Amino acid sequence: MQTELTATRQLAQFVVDSQWRDLPAEVRHEAKRTILNFVGTALCGCRDEAVELAIRALNPFFGPAHATVIGRSERADALSTAFLNAVSANVLEFDDTQLETVIHPAAPVVPAAFALAELRGVSGQELLHAVVLGVEAECRIGKAVTPSHYRRGWHITSTCGVFGAATAAGKLLGLDRKQMVWALGNAAAQSAGLIENLGSMAKSVSVGNAARNGLAAALLAEKGFTGADQAIEGTYGFGRVMSEAVDFGKISNALGDSWEISSNAYKPYPCGVVLFPVIDGCLELRERHRLAAARIAQIRVRGHPLLRIRTDRPDAGTGREAKVSAQHSVAVAFLYGDAGLARYTDACVAEPGVLALRQKVKVEEDPTVPVETAFVTVETTDGHRFQIHVTEARGTMARPMSDAELEAKVSCLADHGSPTVEASGLISTIWKLEDERNVAAIVRMSAPPSTSSGAADRKSF
Amino acid sequence: MQTELTATRQLAQFVVDSQWRDLPAEVRHEAKRTILNFVGTALCGCRDEAVELAIRALNPFFGPAHATVIGRSERADALSTAFLNAVSANVLEFDDTQLETVIHPAAPVVPAAFALAELRGVSGQELLHAVVLGVEAECRIGKAVTPSHYRRGWHITSTCGVFGAATAAGKLLGLDRKQMVWALGNAAAQSAGLIENLGSMAKSVSVGNAARNGLAAALLAEKGFTGADQAIEGTYGFGRVMSEAVDFGKISNALGDSWEISSNAYKPYPCGVVLFPVIDGCLELRERHRLAAARIAQIRVRGHPLLRIRTDRPDAGTGREAKVSAQHSVAVAFLYGDAGLARYTDACVAEPGVLALRQKVKVEEDPTVPVETAFVTVETTDGHRFQIHVTEARGTMARPMSDAELEAKVSCLADHGSPTVEASGLISTIWKLEDERNVAAIVRMSAPPSTSSGAADRKSF
Repeated sequence: MQTELTATRQLAQFVVDSQWRDLPAEVRHEAKRTILNFVGTALCGCRDEAVELAIRALNPFFGPAHATVIGRSERADALSTAFLNAVSANVLEFDDTQLETVIHPAAPVVPAAFALAELRGVSGQELLHAVVLGVEAECRIGKAVTPSHYRRGWHITSTCGVFGAATAAGKLLGLDRKQMVWALGNAAAQSAGLIENLGSMAKSVSVGNAARNGLAAALLAEKGFTGADQAIEGTYGFGRVMSEAVDFGKISNALGDSWEISSNAYKPYPCGVVLFPVIDGCLELRERHRLAAARIAQIRVRGHPLLRIRTDRPDAGTGREAKVSAQHSVAVAFLYGDAGLARYTDACVAEPGVLALRQKVKVEEDPTVPVETAFVTVETTDGHRFQIHVTEARGTMARPMSDAELEAKVSCLADHGSPTVEASGLISTIWKLEDERNVAAIVRMSAPPSTSSGAADRKSF
Repeated sequence: MQTELTATRQLAQFVVDSQWRDLPAEVRHEAKRTILNFVGTALCGCRDEAVELAIRALNPFFGPAHATVIGRSERADALSTAFLNAVSANVLEFDDTQLETVIHPAAPVVPAAFALAELRGVSGQELLHAVVLGVEAECRIGKAVTPSHYRRGWHITSTCGVFGAATAAGKLLGLDRKQMVWALGNAAAQSAGLIENLGSMAKSVSVGNAARNGLAAALLAEKGFTGADQAIEGTYGFGRVMSEAVDFGKISNALGDSWEISSNAYKPYPCGVVLFPVIDGCLELRERHRLAAARIAQIRVRGHPLLRIRTDRPDAGTGREAKVSAQHSVAVAFLYGDAGLARYTDACVAEPGVLALRQKVKVEEDPTVPVETAFVTVETTDGHRFQIHVTEARGTMARPMSDAELEAKVSCLADHGSPTVEASGLISTIWKLEDERNVAAIVRMSAPPSTSSGAADRKSF
């Protein structure tokens, strides 16, 4: 009961008191992996149409060009930049995931910290520390409302990400406990994002806002802009309003004994994480039984209810929507033997062979199947039946990507989306982040060199 | 069922097709009253600490100074200005209210339209038309989720206001139906605001965002930034996620047959509207029975459950919190015989006489009492008992403020908060809005004349 009434304050106190020396070596290392994967996905995602259109629409309102838009020549004010970098990092569905909550931790948190690094000057240790604490806050708050929150229709990365961004920014701003409580209150006032918008660009609005608004929440609190005392656990606070069953102890119990960032996973496929065991299963069956698409009569996919809720989309009409379509992912896995970036384009979505195979895919819900596993069953036209039960998907905690695999992923993403950025230099610098006295220069390395002069580009409309 | 599946599209189609000539004369007139009351509350609210602190915190990120911050010398980009003007209009709790939904319609909608008036050029008819349609959208969407939405803890002005702002902005931008659907989808992605934050400045964050983000939603849609097809009525859309019982027919049925703005009411007191019948009752009892505070043993207030949920705050510690405190409002009404702006200051909240009388006030919940009415019962130290049942509070549809009363209210607010603004000229111009070819100059009249040159004021941080 005590816990129930003070979750916001306990979390704030923990964040304020936390010291760099409190972080175990593996937590510090995971923070670098998180930042590395973030930069990689943003370097590729920054070419997505959602980013292009957001810049075209919002550019007339950008403030002073103090901050680096990852992978792009434009610069913008810190708040707008936080929005854009979060969109870039998340838009390809290739970013990190905490599997228990299905939160993508980095997209809201890292952009807020990057923006302050350029604005105020931040050391590598401070950056890593803020990212660890931001991830801690968003994932703990996410766990408190899981599973009812997502199940109801909340896009949890957006709704909880705003708390993570506020926390990371608040730590870098040196807020005291009272101010940190206000920052969390200001974040609660901006918690938004609906699953209905998955598959459209509007998903990116809530993800971008999570970073932008979390940063704004902390900047406001710094100046004395107040928020509720119990924004998370109060009667009309985040927890009770935005979930059916909430456990506030998950926010405040045993803070500092374990670290949420340790359960962060990095994606081998650029699509919804609930699809990973499905894709692994398809690739394995295809390989093992040399299954040509023409031989397939039906494919049944069975998994956790989230799999059906989020990905049962036989008619996904764009590359974007295909990233959350089980039917599309299964079809390309069997047709091409891979599920890479090229398989989630508008062009691929329109291929007759893909469309035909999609029709043969059924998604079945089974509450007894853990969300990180799946069954795939193929029936062939010649009467055979093959089944696989994937219990350890690639990119999960059971089979995490190695540092080398992560580097390869980031290099590939950078080559694909931002060939003019010196990715190898950036990668090696990120591995040494804790030795940097000022990371502003590193953040600037994530954009093409020609614009790192910091000159503002004025615009008209 | 047909309606269920197409509420977003039907609303969008209606807005796109709507013509100025479709609006009855009384609807056009009510739009002027709404804008007038909006300008008045913003001219006073713009001095509130929440506005001061928001400007101090966010000013380093403001873009080109194209837009007028009402009542202030600063200018800012259109999005930031929409945020600030919405905060100013709403922060004193003195703005308009649709009593059925408890939505404050103008605060999110008018700033989005004002911003576009300065940005793109808009006629008086276009402005009035956009405001009418914005109010129509937010209030219909609000009705669809009333009462469960507010009861659960959603700050309905913020959560529904973002749709209103997107609609008004979308109309002024000339969006087609597809784009208007996207604008509503982008708005749904940003629908946020918790009742827990009432009484703190964080409430203003969600109100300001409703205007800012609604405007951004329309600007994004204009450039082709997509949103869900059924952002409101879809399985994981606004309606089902953010309420327990939703009637989508209230959004799409009989559009154009009646107008939501016709049920807009303007406040005689600068506090929560559910308190109006309570204050009326206190003032009436005090007058009728010459009740000195010292003679009062107990005051019982009985009303709709919303009255208790929103205003049972015996310990309100700031002027801001007092605006949603029944105990405070009752105390000042009996002590001073009025409930004006001066009674909701931090100084008044700290007065020993006020604090003592508050302790004698009890708030009782009765689901059979309509929200626009209340019972007030006073027991005196000498054994008397007086009761009043207020059924028609001042400022409600039953006893609306006249045009002259509204002018007097606006003049008083302007004198109080923005004495250097030529309020009388502004008021008479607003009454003639439909004759104006370009309202940008009128919007600029709402700030002190010295800054209407449009010069950008650069800032440092």
